[in-house]
Parts: sequence; structure tokens; C-alpha cells
Amino acid sequence: MGLSTAYSPPGSRLVTTPLAAGAALRRSVQLLLPRRAPLATVRCSVDAAKQVQEGAATVAAEKPASRKGFGVFSTIYDLKADSEHCKSKSWKKLVSIAVSGAAGMISNHLLFKLASGEVFGQDQPIALKLLGSERSFQALEGVAMELEDSLYPLLREVSIGMDPYEVFEDIDWALLIGAKPRGPGMERAALLDINGQIYADQGKALNAVASRNVKVIVVGNPCNTNALICMKNAPNIPAKNFHALTRLDENRAKCQLALKAGVFYDKVSNMTIWGNHSTTQVPDFLNAKIDGRPAKEVIKDTKWLEEEFTLTVQNRGGVLIQKWGRSSAASTAVSIVDAIRSLVTPTPEGDWFSSGVSFDPFKLFVVLFWCFSEGKIENKTQVYTTGNPYGIAEDTVFSMPCRSKGDGDYELATDVLMDDFLWERIKKTEAELIAEKKCVAHLTGEGIAFCDLPEDTMLPGEM
Amino acid sequence: MGLSTAYSPPGSRLVTTPLAAGAALRRSVQLLLPRRAPLATVRCSVDAAKQVQEGAATVAAEKPASRKGFGVFSTIYDLKADSEHCKSKSWKKLVSIAVSGAAGMISNHLLFKLASGEVFGQDQPIALKLLGSERSFQALEGVAMELEDSLYPLLREVSIGMDPYEVFEDIDWALLIGAKPRGPGMERAALLDINGQIYADQGKALNAVASRNVKVIVVGNPCNTNALICMKNAPNIPAKNFHALTRLDENRAKCQLALKAGVFYDKVSNMTIWGNHSTTQVPDFLNAKIDGRPAKEVIKDTKWLEEEFTLTVQNRGGVLIQKWGRSSAASTAVSIVDAIRSLVTPTPEGDWFSSGVSFDPFKLFVVLFWCFSEGKIENKTQVYTTGNPYGIAEDTVFSMPCRSKGDGDYELATDVLMDDFLWERIKKTEAELIAEKKCVAHLTGEGIAFCDLPEDTMLPGEM
Repeated sequence: MGLSTAYSPPGSRLVTTPLAAGAALRRSVQLLLPRRAPLATVRCSVDAAKQVQEGAATVAAEKPASRKGFGVFSTIYDLKADSEHCKSKSWKKLVSIAVSGAAGMISNHLLFKLASGEVFGQDQPIALKLLGSERSFQALEGVAMELEDSLYPLLREVSIGMDPYEVFEDIDWALLIGAKPRGPGMERAALLDINGQIYADQGKALNAVASRNVKVIVVGNPCNTNALICMKNAPNIPAKNFHALTRLDENRAKCQLALKAGVFYDKVSNMTIWGNHSTTQVPDFLNAKIDGRPAKEVIKDTKWLEEEFTLTVQNRGGVLIQKWGRSSAASTAVSIVDAIRSLVTPTPEGDWFSSGVSFDPFKLFVVLFWCFSEGKIENKTQVYTTGNPYGIAEDTVFSMPCRSKGDGDYELATDVLMDDFLWERIKKTEAELIAEKKCVAHLTGEGIAFCDLPEDTMLPGEM
Repeated sequence: MGLSTAYSPPGSRLVTTPLAAGAALRRSVQLLLPRRAPLATVRCSVDAAKQVQEGAATVAAEKPASRKGFGVFSTIYDLKADSEHCKSKSWKKLVSIAVSGAAGMISNHLLFKLASGEVFGQDQPIALKLLGSERSFQALEGVAMELEDSLYPLLREVSIGMDPYEVFEDIDWALLIGAKPRGPGMERAALLDINGQIYADQGKALNAVASRNVKVIVVGNPCNTNALICMKNAPNIPAKNFHALTRLDENRAKCQLALKAGVFYDKVSNMTIWGNHSTTQVPDFLNAKIDGRPAKEVIKDTKWLEEEFTLTVQNRGGVLIQKWGRSSAASTAVSIVDAIRSLVTPTPEGDWFSSGVSFDPFKLFVVLFWCFSEGKIENKTQVYTTGNPYGIAEDTVFSMPCRSKGDGDYELATDVLMDDFLWERIKKTEAELIAEKKCVAHLTGEGIAFCDLPEDTMLPGEM
């Protein structure tokens, strides 16, 4: 079937190396094989045609030494030469993206979106590094084969692996989707522990080998606390680079407001999901706008806003499973694309997006002070500031309204309204996140875990 | 859960109407409700904000009468007003796309690609019309819900239905993926009959209600003969508008040549798949080029080219099922995107793409004559011209090399090399297509069917 042997099959040296030894091995490999530097070159000019043939003749000997990509992605190429000689394309520097749970259905949508250029743009070549498990390794090969057959011009590297210390090497983005599903009768505390352990290990691996400015989006549930664990195990990476995905909730909330108002969904803006990606989450209709006006002015049905709206948003996944028989893989992948795009393109003036983030109290205080002194914050029903802009407990991964200049970074929005109804619900989701945090203290280096999570707050349709 | 009641649930008047009565009903509906004309308007200017509110108040009464979209897609909007007042976007005229088998896995990838703008571009609003069956209707609702939650700005309409006479109304594209899978022990002849009947009905429906210039891409197997049946039942639509998908085969063939030559796949061009989408198909390495040079000059391994290459391409789907446990939904969807894009964007100079098409002998003869008289055809090993450029039996749907100006139309490439090895294999796949055609004569209006299909030529991994 013509697959290269350059990737590592199950049981090979690279994929079964223990984590600590993996790091040592990686360094030695790096010394021997400088990554992406002096690769043999295939040019597209006429003169270089002969080189192609020579390249073809020598490629078998060269491949294992020069690249460790899957199948056709182990072939040699040179982006710079492509740009210079073909004049058809000016390529940006390769962006390297790791995806965990890469054999799952969400990834099966996401990987092809990343490869198509839909996310990072048509001039941005990418490398995809697929992280799986021993159980899913064959499926990963299948995914890589489909990526080969898709002939995406922007997709320059695909590799697969089971060791995060290998897969996360020098990555710019980590999209962490993989998580164990909750078994029958399993307590949420047990799930937190099992998946928390995975995210602790992955945090350590990111800390050891990823780009120092890697952006991490955690999708695997419970995603806020998994993101917290991951962040705490990666002290050398800025804390604000870690995100928990609440974008699907935001998208669903926008859609429901649009439906209720009888407008197209592109008219809904400033939709915040506050707090945890669980049933305590708070879709915020106080700050949401419809065609630039407060949602509450457009939708007069307060009872619907206060009661049905949140339930409808939260039950969406459950209804979908009933209808479709599967969980919402496609729209989750779309929301991951949205989450990335919100960080790499400037936020539209006045708008914001939701992301589960951990904030830096000092920096925010400075921003808030500036906003107040410049008169940028107006019409606030009440501002809660006990050390940070919203008065939310620090050191959790909490979904909040963010804005980006498109540089991968973001700031929290400070022009936010608050009222008692919203505040009470924020305190409830905050309490849950604090309880979850106590439950995983053994994984964040904060002492002995104490678990008290009485309610099942998993969103319907999620595992 | 906030779904509109504007779509037709199973058992409603619209979806269970018999086909003939459906057409009559459609006409009466059309008289009452001019489509996309005088819709109520939502503007994005500040002045118009009040209209939003009024719109919201009246939308419940208006919706069932003015639109029959699913959920949020039954909301009112006006593309022209959006362009004029927002100044953010200049919208093209809406393109209406029907997808059959819309609840299946291929569609689950394809629909989101269409909605994202990846296929038709970022200034092209689209309407998606999902065709399913009674069995899949709930799943269709699930798909439509996920499309709602994806907030694609270009996706302006989504509707679902079970009656092709409803779903195909005024469509510009028909992507026909739906087909019955082959049951255990079922003969290919029986499959041809069952699926042929579906495609005969859909051809009649296209003939009755689709745009007179609708482009039809048939994916459901056996796709060549299904496309032929569909075409024969739609005499009012140009025959050359019907395509059978062989693009996944082409993409796989390009990838394998690239892998063998040790080059990146974007260096492979002029890859033809000749004939049937079955094991008699002919991936053409005689005309294929690698970095502008004949593939046979770059890859000297003739044994590999003549024996392994074709088998590897054909077995790809089977290997994938072994690895991944599912058929190649994602890469099939990518190849459908490629097939569409090849028709709506100009073919790169000198290159071509493969599509299963039925050719107009007279027009081709004229083109060929012109090419010869202008000296455009050179280096031909041999030209077979018994009434058409390749000498292939007319009146089948046969995969051949095509070029497009990007206007949705195409011409067959005439600068094609032929040798005995290629010709013999073309004759074999031609013989199979002629046999399949005889097998469905009762569905194409050509008399009594006579079926003699001894071999099972279904591609591994396909149903």
C-alpha cells in the first residue's frame, strides 16, 4: 500500500519510550537531525527537473534520516524554494499543531479544517502532529492516509505518535481533545481524576518540549479543570496561553437568541459564556447584543431569557444525540476553529468572544484602572472589583469575555455589565470550579485532594 | 428546544406527497409564495434597529408563510440590504445546493465544507437543501441543528425533506450521495437495479424542478451508471451537466505517484482516471506528469507502474477500512469539494482533472479538428478517432480528462497520449460500462434490460 516506514509503528522505540527517557531521546535525535533546516530540495523550475529524478533515486536512503512524517509527508520539500522559484505562492513559516484524541470524531472534522487553510489562512503551511493511544494507533494511520489522499497543498507534515514528549516537540498549538469517556455509574470525581492525570502528563510534556509560546485549547471534559491541571504542570509556559473550550456553548447561545429574535445569527454579538463548561455555565443575555442593541431590549420575554434560554443552550447536545444518534462532532470542530480564529484575527470592534482562561490579576487591574480613568467603562450596573475586574476567584480556568488583536494573545473585556441575576449565577459556577480544583489538588501540586461534588453537572450529550 | 415549525416533519403534507402530485403542489406553492423575492428585511444600520424589534414581534406569524427553512434558517434576511447597509460584504446571488444521503458520514463532512465557503468562496452565500429518507429524517434534523450552531455567515438557508420534487426546486447543484448499500450476498446487478431506480426518480425530479443549468455530481455507487440513469431521465437538462465522481481515485493516484517519486503531491499533474469507478478503472501513468515531466521518465520502475500502482490506488479504501474501521468519508468529501472547485475555478494551464462524463461527439470532433489544424496536438503515440477524440463508446458516463474555464462547464482534454497498454485497459472498463448500461436499459428508456456482469468489480472498502 506504499506507506513509508518513516513513522513509528506501535511497539517501536519512539512510541513506547517512557516519558522521562523520551525527553532524553528527543534531545539526542534533535542533535543528530536538525528539524526543518538543511532538507534536500525539490524545486519546480525546469532546470531543477533533473534534481527531482536524482531526489527520487536517493530518497529511500534519505528519508528515515531527514524526516519522520507519515507516508507522503516524509517526502522532501522546501517552502522557501517553492516561493522563490514557482512565484505562485509566498509561504509563511510553518505552524506546527498537535491534536490529541486524533482518531476521534471531533478530530476527524477538525484535522481536515486545519489542513484546508480554513483556520490559519491560505498562505499558512501547517504541520499536523497526531497524538493517539495504543488502542487508536491503527485508526490514526487511517486518518493520516485520508489526509494524504486529500492533497492539501498547505499540509506539509503529518506525523502520528503515542508519546506526548515526541508529538509536542516545538509545537505552536496544542488542541487537546482526547479524554476518557465516563463509564457507566462513574462519579464525576473519578472522571476528574482519570482525565486529570492525562492532562497533568500532557502539561509536563508541553512544559518540556513545546514552543515557549504554545497556545493550548483543552476540549476533553471536564475541560476547565483539565486546562487548569495542564497549566499548573507547565510552569514555563505563560498561564494565559491555556484555554478551555466554551465556544460551542457561545455559538449555541447566539443561535438561540437569533431564533428567538427572528434575526439571522450574524446579528448577535457580545455573547459571553461565564464559568464552567457544565450545567452551571452562564450564557449571558445581559451583555449580549442583537444588531447592536441590548438583547433584553429586543427580546422582551424576560421569563424566556431567565429560564428557557440557558436550558435550551445546555440541552442542545442532548437533543442532538436523540436526533442524530451521535454527539456533536462537526459543530464542536467548528467551534474549535472559531476559538483559534478568534485568537489569530482581530476581534471586531466592540465585540468579544468567550474562552475559559486563567487571568493575571495584576495586569487586569492595570487595564481596568486605565479603562476607568479614560472613561471607557460606562453604563455599568455595578462593577465588582475585589482585586480583579469581575471579582471572580482567581486561579481557576473560568470562561470570560476576551478580545484579541489577532496575535494569538488576548485581553479580558472590561466594558461588561453586571446585575444581581447574572452575578448569582456566576458565583454558582465559580463555586463549582473551586470545588473541582480542590478535587484535583494532587494533580496541580497544591496538596491533598478533597472532593465534594454532589451534583452531576455534565452537560447533556457530553461524556 | 426552540426549533421552528417551518420545516416539514415526517408525515406532513409536503414530504409524503406522491411524486406526481408533488410537482402539482409545488406549482401551487410557488404561485402563492414567490421564492426569495419580497422577503421582509432586516437591516444592520442603526436606524433599522427598531425594525428588528418589530420584525421579532411579527416573525412568528410571518415565518410559515414566507420561508420554509429549518430552525434559525427560517428567519428573515436580505442579502442585498446587508451589502448596501453594512458595507462589510458584497454578496453574490445565492447558490442553491441539494445533497442527497444528507444524514450520512460523507455528507456530514461535505455540508460543513460547503457552508464554510471553502468550496464556492467567501463572497458566495449558499442554501443547503438536504434530501433524506423517512428512516434518516431525525438524523437530518440533527445535521441541520449542527449547521445552525455553526453560525456560518454564508449559510443563508437550510431545509430538509424527503421528496426530491420539493428538495430539488430551483437548485444550482445536486450532489447525489445517497444510495442503498449492498446487502450480504447481493449481486451487483441487483444493486444496479435498486440504486438505479432511486437515480431514475431523482433524474425525473431534477428534470421537473431544478434549474435548467443544474450541475449534478453522482457519488452513490455504482456512480457511473447511476449518473447515466439520472441523465437519461432528465432530458431537459444538458447531458454534459452530469458527472460521476472519480476524483477520490485521481487524488489517491496522485498521492501514490508522489510517494513513489519522493516528491510532494502538488508536483503531480495531468492525472486521469479513465472509465468506471470500479476495479476496471484506469489510473493513467502515461499522461501523468511529475514536476512537468512525464511520470514514466521520473519513475523508472515500469513494473511498479504497470502492476502495483493501480492496485494500490484501488485497494486504498479497503486498507483504510481495516485501519480506521470506517470508510473514507472525510477524503471522499474533500474529493467532492475538489470536483466542484474544478468546475468553478479555471483549470491551471496545461493541467486537467478527471470526471465521469458523457460527451457530445459532434462538439468534440470540432474541437479535435481545430486542435489538429492549429498544431496543438503533438507527440501523440497514437490518436484513436472513430467519431470522437478517444474512440470510446459514446453514451456512457466515462471518466475522462477535463478542463474548465471556471464557469461550471468543461471541455475534454484532447492533448492526450495513448499507447497499447493504456488502450487495452480503457477497452476493458468501456466493456464493463456497456454491460452495466444494458443491465439498466429498463431505467434509461432503452428497452428490456439484459444483465451479464460476471465479475464483482466493486472497489474495496466501498458499498
